[in-house]
Amino acid sequence: MKPVKVGVCGLGTVGSGTVNVLLRNAGILKARTGREIQLTQIGARRPNPACDTTGIDVTTDIFEVAANPEIDIVVELIGGYDVALQLVKTAIENGKHVVTANKALIAEHGNEIFTLAREKNVIVAYEAGVAGGIPAIKALREGLVANRISWLAGIINGTGNFILTEMKDRGSPFADVLKEAQELGYAEADPTFDVEGIDAAHKLAILAANAFGTPLMFDKTYTEGISRVTPDDLRYAQELGYRIKHLGIARQREGGVELRVHPTLIPESHLLASVNGVMNSVLVQGDAVGQTMYYGPGAGSEPTASAVVADIADIARLVDAPSAAVPPLPYSAGTTEVAALPIGDVVAASYLRMRVKDHPGVLMRVTEALGQYGINIDALLQKEKREIAGAADIVLLTHEIKESVLMSAIQAIEALDDITGKVAHIRVEHLD
Amino acid sequence: MKPVKVGVCGLGTVGSGTVNVLLRNAGILKARTGREIQLTQIGARRPNPACDTTGIDVTTDIFEVAANPEIDIVVELIGGYDVALQLVKTAIENGKHVVTANKALIAEHGNEIFTLAREKNVIVAYEAGVAGGIPAIKALREGLVANRISWLAGIINGTGNFILTEMKDRGSPFADVLKEAQELGYAEADPTFDVEGIDAAHKLAILAANAFGTPLMFDKTYTEGISRVTPDDLRYAQELGYRIKHLGIARQREGGVELRVHPTLIPESHLLASVNGVMNSVLVQGDAVGQTMYYGPGAGSEPTASAVVADIADIARLVDAPSAAVPPLPYSAGTTEVAALPIGDVVAASYLRMRVKDHPGVLMRVTEALGQYGINIDALLQKEKREIAGAADIVLLTHEIKESVLMSAIQAIEALDDITGKVAHIRVEHLD
Repeated sequence: MKPVKVGVCGLGTVGSGTVNVLLRNAGILKARTGREIQLTQIGARRPNPACDTTGIDVTTDIFEVAANPEIDIVVELIGGYDVALQLVKTAIENGKHVVTANKALIAEHGNEIFTLAREKNVIVAYEAGVAGGIPAIKALREGLVANRISWLAGIINGTGNFILTEMKDRGSPFADVLKEAQELGYAEADPTFDVEGIDAAHKLAILAANAFGTPLMFDKTYTEGISRVTPDDLRYAQELGYRIKHLGIARQREGGVELRVHPTLIPESHLLASVNGVMNSVLVQGDAVGQTMYYGPGAGSEPTASAVVADIADIARLVDAPSAAVPPLPYSAGTTEVAALPIGDVVAASYLRMRVKDHPGVLMRVTEALGQYGINIDALLQKEKREIAGAADIVLLTHEIKESVLMSAIQAIEALDDITGKVAHIRVEHLD
Repeated sequence: MKPVKVGVCGLGTVGSGTVNVLLRNAGILKARTGREIQLTQIGARRPNPACDTTGIDVTTDIFEVAANPEIDIVVELIGGYDVALQLVKTAIENGKHVVTANKALIAEHGNEIFTLAREKNVIVAYEAGVAGGIPAIKALREGLVANRISWLAGIINGTGNFILTEMKDRGSPFADVLKEAQELGYAEADPTFDVEGIDAAHKLAILAANAFGTPLMFDKTYTEGISRVTPDDLRYAQELGYRIKHLGIARQREGGVELRVHPTLIPESHLLASVNGVMNSVLVQGDAVGQTMYYGPGAGSEPTASAVVADIADIARLVDAPSAAVPPLPYSAGTTEVAALPIGDVVAASYLRMRVKDHPGVLMRVTEALGQYGINIDALLQKEKREIAGAADIVLLTHEIKESVLMSAIQAIEALDDITGKVAHIRVEHLD
């Protein structure tokens, strides 16, 4: 059988990992896919000492790879939007299959890319874009194909999970741990994408489209970062039997889907609460199987390359197959547009933390304010703040309540004389 | 596109779940696979009130299903060996693809079945045979295709994990918890297959063949059950920072592979240690990706059906594709026979527990005996047994040592005057 020819564009962290894995494990790949996968050309502005490209045709013009008539599969690993989009579209126009690790590109331009790919009858694969080396997209599209997915929840940003894990373990504030993460190379110089949840929202949009068979709805995803979580919050949550994780949550509801990224209290007994450091994990609820979870490294050179090469191998087996053999892309002809529910319509339990003047009656006035909005309290902590005379923290967990109602109750609490500053609010999910 | 026609043989727990999922989620399956999956015939000795087969052709002769010229895929869910093997072989001879949930059949007759399937150019799929609803086989064969797998470790028998979890949480002895598991329906009247590790060894053999590209080697798998684990062991392990889990472990070593099922101490901080109750989990170490883990229900009607139907959907997409599109079966032409290492050659850390007469010098004589075999001690507990006058338990963790050497040391310890009875021995794995 003739070899399948691959062109890799971009030779950064993931590109060099992909080259290394393709070369090192060429024998295994041939045994497992039944044909040779040949690294035919690399497009990169400069060489990367992390990989040896001796004997491989290297060009500085990535568009040469997309135009190379020899090549079956173009691998886009340059990142970013404009040039990457142009490269992917050119490759598709030229009848190439495409593999990419670019979640931003897929989340924001995937609907357009998938439409073009269907017209040209080529495959666009993006396993590496979500949860790094974990085969989560494959699990959703193929392993759980029999299930109606009611919800999924994921720790899908390693930087954020590292920061929250360190803050909890050491009681350090966000800013200090962020600085350390930057020094360790776990966080970018501009950490906005990671800590404000944009990267997680990209991945959540991709997961949700695959789970629910909907178009990509990144622009409708509610996104909240972790910069306002305090060491106190992490400690109080623990005292109440919870952990705080930065989750991406997608849920099918009557009338639409919830798509939201935010810090979340989850029960400490749930396996997802034990996913620490830079690791990622995706939890999925299906109607037949119940809960399954997929865990592994969410980033890194060879972990991400593992997913890139898995996509290459899938395509290699299918290059001569009819298109019916390929699991359909999200936003295919059969998918239905659905509404994204506004965050105010979300019904969730909540953690509230407020600073109060420590004198009798304050707790009563807070619970009265909640009661006026029909909000019941599940658990409560009152903690004297030794370092501030006359001040205490009240922490409480509410029953499930519509978020717009909760916001009104929070305004009423903040208007009370006994309350100093704002009420901190973190959603609670029991994941059952 | 013409529908893919499925015949289901067996209408027990998994069979009825499969019928229910195929019928309930027919629309989702059509959207996701691009074609209709039609439940054309059921072969079952008697109806099952758990599923409604109105309008479906039901025969009491399963071999009628295997001979039905209409049918593309025969689903074997009758269990057992002889008739199941005959059914599967007949279906393959008749050019049908086969899906089965029968791990015993695949583990013990898979090499023969796969050889026949290749001759007839049909697919034999068995995702449901290992770890129930978790797409673990798909992860190994496809999601991790880029990796050289160095080892895998799994909690792959829900009954055993339930018993160990309950013994630990409540301090109850094995026999009591087994009885309760039988009353709850988690354990069979004859629990041998589950508690003695045979079921786990079946699944381990299948996982290892897929991970390493070797033939199935069930008959060479070392198997030890959980019936000798005591509540004391579970408590002592916990004091040392470990949990005891019944693991299946497969590891590539120079000179061959280790295949072993036995109770194992694992660090309590490892995610696998938090997999409790009837849940299953498979942890895999690949050279590119590092560690990934797959978690979910290991048994049950619809969880298992979820995997059966995933296999059906995979085949449905591939019925018109060339055979190159199908990930090869284990024991395909390219696989290499490898040696299974005898358990005496395994190098592992160990937990040893012994009852001693509580007087000075005993600990010194035990450590001397170990020292004579070059065995170092990592951690040690000495526990007075209040209920037995003058008796104490010594518990220690050894460094990694070849098992045959450890066995000699244990004999030397058992020969000491101060030791009462046998030395209990449980292997330790750090899973790093």
